[in-house]
Amino acid sequence: MAIVEVSVVPLGLSTASLSKHVAAVLEPLKSSGLKYTLTAMGTIIEGEIGDVIQCVLKMHEIPFGEGVQRVYTTVKIDDRRDKQITMESKVRSVMNKDT
Amino acid sequence: MAIVEVSVVPLGLSTASLSKHVAAVLEPLKSSGLKYTLTAMGTIIEGEIGDVIQCVLKMHEIPFGEGVQRVYTTVKIDDRRDKQITMESKVRSVMNKDT
Amino acid sequence: MAIVEVSVVPLGLSTASLSKHVAAVLEPLKSSGLKYTLTAMGTIIEGEIGDVIQCVLKMHEIPFGEGVQRVYTTVKIDDRRDKQITMESKVRSVMNKDT
Amino acid sequence: MAIVEVSVVPLGLSTASLSKHVAAVLEPLKSSGLKYTLTAMGTIIEGEIGDVIQCVLKMHEIPFGEGVQRVYTTVKIDDRRDKQITMESKVRSVMNKDT
Repeated sequence: MAIVEVSVVPLGLSTASLSKHVAAVLEPLKSSGLKYTLTAMGTIIEGEIGDVIQCVLKMHEIPFGEGVQRVYTTVKIDDRRDKQITMESKVRSVMNKDT
Repeated sequence: MAIVEVSVVPLGLSTASLSKHVAAVLEPLKSSGLKYTLTAMGTIIEGEIGDVIQCVLKMHEIPFGEGVQRVYTTVKIDDRRDKQITMESKVRSVMNKDT
Repeated sequence: MAIVEVSVVPLGLSTASLSKHVAAVLEPLKSSGLKYTLTAMGTIIEGEIGDVIQCVLKMHEIPFGEGVQRVYTTVKIDDRRDKQITMESKVRSVMNKDT
Repeated sequence: MAIVEVSVVPLGLSTASLSKHVAAVLEPLKSSGLKYTLTAMGTIIEGEIGDVIQCVLKMHEIPFGEGVQRVYTTVKIDDRRDKQITMESKVRSVMNKDT
């Protein structure tokens, strides 16, 4: 199981507001069946690494279909194979060590 | 107001488990009075950009104080000056456009 | 054509030195035929987005094959469809505007 | 010594071309005396972590001075304290392990 964070930023829009585009980018994720959380800085997805990356590629394509000419996408992958991790278990694990 | 995401990753530890270190890294943030949220992939902080970055530098120093020899820190800054943004308003804005 | 930057960081090694692992991670890239440049902070790859991401996935798998239990990979994608961009043209374009 | 990679992306421009803005962002770096390299995906800076981050903050401010309303900046910090690292030594070290 990998935890992956993605942010898809369309460039060349004359407005500084991106929320409409961010909402559209989520569509392939919703139909993927993958578990995800929306944060103020991106979308965190949980799943098998190959499945998640295929979904990320579909998300990255969405703005081009809306006429955007340049897309800047950042992806962070945390992939651990010695034990099962989930989005929840990672946060809980830090909370439990908290002093 | 800027929204900043930070992840501080200590390298050269013989264990793949980082939660103890991540919990320690949060200490300067707690005493800073800045608003923040812990996610599965990092910590999101809200505040004036200079204040937030000073806090990020303190967080980055924590593992060295614990004997770590190398720290890999990533920071994403979303700084918008035409309107007030918060962690909550950014997420809500996307949800509202959601189809 | 997309320009993609990738860094693959193995976690849970008892040494702070990563160069041996970084060299191994480059193997799938060398046999891919894709154009790339090694920098002090990652590897920059030029190519069709699907091809590049398939190669990135292979690079991400390499440390697991060497016994590493956790891999932290970051990917930045700059994908422009209104004109052809290359690694060289991007740097030259900034240099030419330089004052 | 830390090696820091920064990319400053102005949002809300009606053009997909960013090179003019990227050139302007380099100005504080040039006058800083810090060693740096321009790559296709960002600027890599070498120096004491506090000095580098002060310079990064100045670079991040440049687009606002040109009328941009939103700036998206990403920073990666590789800070190693057990031995002296430079941009050149990091690349050379990987090359030497290369098979």
